[in-house]
Amino acid sequence: MPIRKIKLTIQYDGADYHGWQIQPGYKTIQGELAEALRGLTGANVAVTGASRTDAGVSALGQTACFEIDSPIPTQNFAKALNDRLPNDIAASEAVEVPQDFDVIGDVTSKMYQYSIFTANVRPVLNVRHCWHHPHTLNAELMHEAAQYLLGKHDFKSFASAADDRESSVRTIFGCDVTRIGDAIIVKTEGDGFLYNMMRNIVGTLTDVGAGRTLPAKIKDILEAKDRTAAGPIAPAAGLCLMWIKYR
Amino acid sequence: MPIRKIKLTIQYDGADYHGWQIQPGYKTIQGELAEALRGLTGANVAVTGASRTDAGVSALGQTACFEIDSPIPTQNFAKALNDRLPNDIAASEAVEVPQDFDVIGDVTSKMYQYSIFTANVRPVLNVRHCWHHPHTLNAELMHEAAQYLLGKHDFKSFASAADDRESSVRTIFGCDVTRIGDAIIVKTEGDGFLYNMMRNIVGTLTDVGAGRTLPAKIKDILEAKDRTAAGPIAPAAGLCLMWIKYR
Repeated sequence: MPIRKIKLTIQYDGADYHGWQIQPGYKTIQGELAEALRGLTGANVAVTGASRTDAGVSALGQTACFEIDSPIPTQNFAKALNDRLPNDIAASEAVEVPQDFDVIGDVTSKMYQYSIFTANVRPVLNVRHCWHHPHTLNAELMHEAAQYLLGKHDFKSFASAADDRESSVRTIFGCDVTRIGDAIIVKTEGDGFLYNMMRNIVGTLTDVGAGRTLPAKIKDILEAKDRTAAGPIAPAAGLCLMWIKYR
Repeated sequence: MPIRKIKLTIQYDGADYHGWQIQPGYKTIQGELAEALRGLTGANVAVTGASRTDAGVSALGQTACFEIDSPIPTQNFAKALNDRLPNDIAASEAVEVPQDFDVIGDVTSKMYQYSIFTANVRPVLNVRHCWHHPHTLNAELMHEAAQYLLGKHDFKSFASAADDRESSVRTIFGCDVTRIGDAIIVKTEGDGFLYNMMRNIVGTLTDVGAGRTLPAKIKDILEAKDRTAAGPIAPAAGLCLMWIKYR
């Protein structure tokens, strides 16, 4: 059989993991996937993810890619992996892709969702998947502020670790802030996200929602190209990678 | 200050606990509450719960009661306890009740909700709070069957451990089965529930939903007054105690 390249769609509850990327001695999503693939095929399979999500961050639509020489039909990979993966990780789809498919380079857009829970009593059934922030926030002001992020900008002010070798210019296609009861949901779609960018955006929007920062200040923060100009970083627990689109 | 009797409304994610009731060497909800009260007041406080929920069962509206000789104002108890309780347990309300209030005997009705998730891929963000049962179920048939449970019956067929000293007659006020996307939700309100009764009801309704049992068979199962007449027990993870009403 020829070697196939398989693209997996992966969901996970990141609460109990040290993020996506394999680190010796730590439980990681990439590590669990590699282990499940080794169990399934008997081979060491290199798995590449589209996004290196941080410790505590969850995903409903991460993408992972690997090459494999195995008789297992492509459409059976998701179920076969799910039988070996822990309960908080699951593959929802496996499709064969061309050999030149680039799981990182071919991304056209990603969507992250961030959940803030503002009631006084913490949401016990969801506390691992939200930021419990029991303070009054004005979602309309947050949404107004978010609109300044749309378009192509240098997002250096929203990147936790500036890597000067890499461009910090990204394009944000949409950033919507809505209130659902006691929850505030921030959905952001962009062609790429810098390190901690989504969490730094949410922390800054929360300053706006609390009345500490005016919406139009986002323009100045972008222009500053300096991390200290933006607000604090929001906790990892509220973040979920929802989907990734490819060209 | 006179001794006050306080009624607490408690929420918890039961996934990591060995149920409500204190057991030496195990993490239990009652044990964590007693520990938080000891930390807060310096005294050993006996806490009584309205329902002894099993290992893995969650609650959004459990009730607990204790007597206390403390200067802490009643309205501050919930917040003060939440500062000391683990993240997956929270008190949502504390009110003073009369000395003759009986947290078990004065209950007029309780509502339990059970969640079944029927899609093939397990719901990674909710897998600790549902029964992942990837099979086709007919929710309309399940609802039709559930209507035979309404009213006053001997529910011995649905009790895991028959205690002949105690009556197994209970009154069910409502049992509604609804589908929401890939989830099937069973909501049952009654004046009381026997040991594992709700989980045995759900297991039996699932037999109906799968076409293994006809809805009208529920009548025969009730009349048999024999646990082996009903279906299998559904897993604890899907069960949540939603609220308790008092006279």
